Amino acid sequence: MVEQKLAELKARLLEVDNINAAASVLSWDQSTYMPPGGAQARARQLATLQQLSHQKFTDPAIGRLLDDLQAYAESLPYDHDDAALIRVTRREYERATKIPQDLVAALSAHISQSYAAWVEARPANDWARMVPLLEKTVELSRRIADCFPGYEHPMDPLIEWADPGMTVATIRPLFAKLRDNLVPLVEAITAHPPADDSCLHRTYPEDRQREFGERVIRAFGYDFNRGRQDKTAHPFMIKFSIGDVRITTRFKENDLSEGLFSTLHEAGHALYEQNVDWAYEGTPLANGASSGVHESQSRLWENLVGRSRPFWEHYYPHLQATFPEQLGDVSLDTFYRAINKVQRSLIRTDADEVTYNLHVLIRFDLEAQLLEGSLAVKDLRDAWNARYESDLGITPPDDAHGVLQDVHWFGGVVGGAFQGYTLGNIMSAQIFNAAVNAHPSIPDEIRQGQFETLRTWLTENIYRHGAKFLPLELIERATGKPLDIADYIAYLRRKYGELYPEAVKA
Amino acid sequence: MVEQKLAELKARLLEVDNINAAASVLSWDQSTYMPPGGAQARARQLATLQQLSHQKFTDPAIGRLLDDLQAYAESLPYDHDDAALIRVTRREYERATKIPQDLVAALSAHISQSYAAWVEARPANDWARMVPLLEKTVELSRRIADCFPGYEHPMDPLIEWADPGMTVATIRPLFAKLRDNLVPLVEAITAHPPADDSCLHRTYPEDRQREFGERVIRAFGYDFNRGRQDKTAHPFMIKFSIGDVRITTRFKENDLSEGLFSTLHEAGHALYEQNVDWAYEGTPLANGASSGVHESQSRLWENLVGRSRPFWEHYYPHLQATFPEQLGDVSLDTFYRAINKVQRSLIRTDADEVTYNLHVLIRFDLEAQLLEGSLAVKDLRDAWNARYESDLGITPPDDAHGVLQDVHWFGGVVGGAFQGYTLGNIMSAQIFNAAVNAHPSIPDEIRQGQFETLRTWLTENIYRHGAKFLPLELIERATGKPLDIADYIAYLRRKYGELYPEAVKA
Repeated sequence: MVEQKLAELKARLLEVDNINAAASVLSWDQSTYMPPGGAQARARQLATLQQLSHQKFTDPAIGRLLDDLQAYAESLPYDHDDAALIRVTRREYERATKIPQDLVAALSAHISQSYAAWVEARPANDWARMVPLLEKTVELSRRIADCFPGYEHPMDPLIEWADPGMTVATIRPLFAKLRDNLVPLVEAITAHPPADDSCLHRTYPEDRQREFGERVIRAFGYDFNRGRQDKTAHPFMIKFSIGDVRITTRFKENDLSEGLFSTLHEAGHALYEQNVDWAYEGTPLANGASSGVHESQSRLWENLVGRSRPFWEHYYPHLQATFPEQLGDVSLDTFYRAINKVQRSLIRTDADEVTYNLHVLIRFDLEAQLLEGSLAVKDLRDAWNARYESDLGITPPDDAHGVLQDVHWFGGVVGGAFQGYTLGNIMSAQIFNAAVNAHPSIPDEIRQGQFETLRTWLTENIYRHGAKFLPLELIERATGKPLDIADYIAYLRRKYGELYPEAVKA
Repeated sequence: MVEQKLAELKARLLEVDNINAAASVLSWDQSTYMPPGGAQARARQLATLQQLSHQKFTDPAIGRLLDDLQAYAESLPYDHDDAALIRVTRREYERATKIPQDLVAALSAHISQSYAAWVEARPANDWARMVPLLEKTVELSRRIADCFPGYEHPMDPLIEWADPGMTVATIRPLFAKLRDNLVPLVEAITAHPPADDSCLHRTYPEDRQREFGERVIRAFGYDFNRGRQDKTAHPFMIKFSIGDVRITTRFKENDLSEGLFSTLHEAGHALYEQNVDWAYEGTPLANGASSGVHESQSRLWENLVGRSRPFWEHYYPHLQATFPEQLGDVSLDTFYRAINKVQRSLIRTDADEVTYNLHVLIRFDLEAQLLEGSLAVKDLRDAWNARYESDLGITPPDDAHGVLQDVHWFGGVVGGAFQGYTLGNIMSAQIFNAAVNAHPSIPDEIRQGQFETLRTWLTENIYRHGAKFLPLELIERATGKPLDIADYIAYLRRKYGELYPEAVKA
């Protein structure tokens, strides 16, 4: 009885997974190889698949199966696979069924309009054009939050989608402590002359950039039999099945770090998805635990490994051999300082490791205020500029470099889309430390270009679990303690203390 | 009322088209870029889409809409777009609904098994292994034919799928006349020493092959804004929408003709699909009229244009400039003879223009006999070998070069899959002649590398109509006379009479 219902649930979820995967293939193709003439039909093809997926997943039969299986789930240990499947499916089912279809349609239509306007308004610095559109987006975002009554803060239901189990109340104290640490750190470092990164801006032929990057991620353990790398305007990772997890990157011939670190970043996301337990294939468990945990893995491989001194002690001679004309006269020390240059900057996506989170914190605070109603959209630009002045000591010269820079608020709901970036950074250090505590040889192995111990520990403690645990549960299980900023701050102070001994006292 | 029902029909057909297009994108990806690890999940993703498409298209609501619209359709002229839409949709709807689901499932399961066995049996020359499997395929093929009672020959319903409106009775006389002409022509030509094609087997770097081929098809009018060319093991054309019609090819560095002529061939298919009337987008009318008409366009551009003397009078100097080391010392005459070499051969897909149809005729006759019951599967190999001896004067040394060579009978139903190749060749000459009769400047334009008059005539008379007309109707409308082999035979005799004046009297 239970067995049969579980089998039926899995069969229905597999059908939804097949449709979602098909939509992902169409999206991937749209970003990689589709000719311009395919765009119009691709939009309707994707819309049909999304509609079918929604219909199939919100079928009341799934709700009944979940109800029928609830007693069974409750009879199992929390970490039993079936219990997790039923729990996570129910969470997603409720999210999918609680928003009325007319609200979904209204949001979707409005967002199309807002996005199309933003594409023009950003280069034109036309903030005034976006104000009424963003007001409507905030209103619709609140109405969506209201579909999940009982929240403490109107952003909580939106955060729940991306980082389940987390709320404004759990995130704010973390972020406040982080800001208290970061603002003076940035001030201290940027009081000194910035690193010279001109060596990164020589001419680096694309094919050799690609070759080097793929060599590194192959060493990380990214399995090219179950993935591939292509070029897109905006890099991303996308999964069609555990056996097919692809990444994309972009190269600039005059910026070595652009392509390389985006390859390492996306490979980090992909390592997570490639190493989820095969038993979860085709179910909602075969995903990352949250935006934050996902980002922790992209940042761990990009920054804690890929921008670390031990890593480059191994790889820098190889990089020099790949680019002898460009780097033959550049010392490891100069190169290492270049890839870890810290500067006050206006654009989040270009920001370095130290300043990056300040960009995120500003957005998180402002979107929370918009949803609370304590900040009006018409005052958002001034609030944005004031925060850049107070937190980063720099004022945007125009809105393209300010409030209009990110797509998130103009191409989706307001709320829930930013906190994951910084949660990921915080988690990355705590997770990396736990791995090193378990295997103190890891830094030396990295110095040898060996990553297996690290990747195996991550697979065992993070990757294989997929979406089974809530992010805070997963972190505590993996690291033995609740999520906290201490490891992350210690990591930054140690690393940048070595780079800027005059500025950062240990 | 009619308007509303027509709109509902189109909306339902568009949804089906969106699902089918998505499945096509997944197939394209599977053949081009998918990593090996993606194969298992891709099979279930495709199966889900095919099932959804079938469910949506066979929805009784579509049958009711067609019934409700029948009087309207009958009130319209035959060539009215709405009449054609209703007529063609009904034809496909009946085909899709008349085969019971359990028979579809039984066939699908059996074909998977047969195909998997054939993949091993062909290289092993294991005909005995395939006999019982093919017996079952023949039986299932007959049962499928029986779902469409009233046929004259059991192969007719299977031919109808690919070449609607045609039957064994209409095709046999054409093919018999063709054989009577081809067998002596092949004998006469092959009594003389074959052309020397060693110039095609020097080393041709792939990137320059690709560049040259794409330059030619761009001149043909293939629109790269609405398509692209990628590499696959087996070349094909695939359409996701009128705005996205892709082709694939394969290159051999030691065989210039392989990649080049497969590019021209697939571009011919693609020109057809790219030039269907946009009003038909998303409906069953946005397809070619039949296998045969489709093949007529691939062969027209590949052979009547691409292997013609005027074409190479223009392009050969460009080809020599592209490959100066390989072709600098080869005259146009030598090259032209090389690409039109005639020889008795065993493998259909490698056959030249003159012998090709003999391969097809053998298959057509044998599969008709299998379905009639006048030939037993266990006797098929002997019958095959006897026909190769009598028609081509050559006996297969083994079954991989004989009865096991083609996938068709082992990866699908028996019947209906071969006649289109030869119908296409016959049509190609009749259509090309009609174009030249309308615009006698066409050969001279080809000699200048100009194809617009030809392509425009084809668009006006063939392409834009999509699947609106039955193939025989379309041919008669376009050429002013019923389909006949006369133009095709005249074309072969003229062309090969010039190449082998001693062998072929005009």
